[in-house]
Amino acid sequence: MLSRRNISFINSLKLKKNRQEYHCFVVEGSKLVEELLHSRLHIQTIYATPQWIETFNSQITAKKTESFPVTEKELERISSLKTANQVLALVDTPQPEFDPRLVANDTILMLDNINDPGNLGTIIRTADWFGIQHIICSPGTVDLFNPKTVQATMGSIARVNVYYLNLTETIKSFGHNKPVYGLLLQGKPLNRASIDKNSIMLLGSESHGISKHLLPLITHPLLIPSMLDGAPGIARPESLNAAVATAILCWEISR
Amino acid sequence: MLSRRNISFINSLKLKKNRQEYHCFVVEGSKLVEELLHSRLHIQTIYATPQWIETFNSQITAKKTESFPVTEKELERISSLKTANQVLALVDTPQPEFDPRLVANDTILMLDNINDPGNLGTIIRTADWFGIQHIICSPGTVDLFNPKTVQATMGSIARVNVYYLNLTETIKSFGHNKPVYGLLLQGKPLNRASIDKNSIMLLGSESHGISKHLLPLITHPLLIPSMLDGAPGIARPESLNAAVATAILCWEISR
Repeated sequence: MLSRRNISFINSLKLKKNRQEYHCFVVEGSKLVEELLHSRLHIQTIYATPQWIETFNSQITAKKTESFPVTEKELERISSLKTANQVLALVDTPQPEFDPRLVANDTILMLDNINDPGNLGTIIRTADWFGIQHIICSPGTVDLFNPKTVQATMGSIARVNVYYLNLTETIKSFGHNKPVYGLLLQGKPLNRASIDKNSIMLLGSESHGISKHLLPLITHPLLIPSMLDGAPGIARPESLNAAVATAILCWEISR
Repeated sequence: MLSRRNISFINSLKLKKNRQEYHCFVVEGSKLVEELLHSRLHIQTIYATPQWIETFNSQITAKKTESFPVTEKELERISSLKTANQVLALVDTPQPEFDPRLVANDTILMLDNINDPGNLGTIIRTADWFGIQHIICSPGTVDLFNPKTVQATMGSIARVNVYYLNLTETIKSFGHNKPVYGLLLQGKPLNRASIDKNSIMLLGSESHGISKHLLPLITHPLLIPSMLDGAPGIARPESLNAAVATAILCWEISR
């Protein structure tokens, strides 16, 4: 049986400050935890129904992970989901060190103050799909280990390296070796631009765009043109969703 | 002051069956309600702080809409948002009639059982950006007037026509006049396909893909290739988020 102390500890990880203090976070759902069992991340404990533990027994043993059988009622008491799943895992937070030499020929995605946890998770999942392995977030970006972010990554959190760094300094550290793309209203239409894979893609938040102090660092302003641009008297959306804009950029880089 | 009856009526609209019975839904937030004031949708009542009503007075008058001043405390009691905004509007549900003749030369987006309300809203917003004006949803798709969908459309709900129809019958009603694109694992890579604007784009849910009975109706299976496809021993995400996949298709059609 789950102790009260355990229940309250796991629930405390819904808050960023506790995740930071204890260097661990929560992953829920059979598909996601199964992905983690095959990943490089270190799982501290798996809390699951006895049937789940039986089904995944060999993988749990291979990963040398502690498993703890719980009832569905107990899972409900520690879950962040509306409908608790069969399994919840306590996972060490990965803390990758950023090494500019490792990404010298890669696309780097930079996120400036993305504040929606679901958007951040979807961006990580999309980057993973398109083979982008490094994402640098401004310190003001929502926490990677927020339960909603973790769920939205659909397992990609175990593969993509996410760093929280000062964006100005990091861009400057590359000197002039990488073009810096950024979506701006006065940018070049994406369909008429040629995109270099060896580059930095800078994305801002939906509500505030890219921060003012970063604008001078953009070497190639881009624009995803709306079909409604220039049509007189026709209202159109003010912007695209941040994850959608990122996806279109990632697709253009990969196509 | 808001009556108890009003409060309980507005809160009852969080449920689909009540929105269907009373033919109205709720829109929250200053930006969204401002968009509605300039739209074709009919607003029954605006509940807002006296400052909001004062600021938007001329637009409220022009729209011939009833406005009702409320306190922030009262707004909290009727809001679906974590942090209630300055304004909430009660809006008649639009019920556009589908007329195949009106869309004879257009791109039609078809959604097969998309179940996440946020995804549906983001898809509508993206379609709007790319000038797609008609979305046909299977009856099993999440309700357009779900508060999370409404918020995620960011105002596009007032511009894009959304219909709930039987997809098989609707596709068949076009005869062979429109190619039917669908994302399938064995589809043609999108970067090697030529895409016709005058077409149907069929999107399935993330968890179940496109329903089996619709598969024979797809004339052009497509695939958004992952950069990690074919790389031996490398795990990759199982799929893209439904709104992300739709966005990449919309962009390809428009570019």
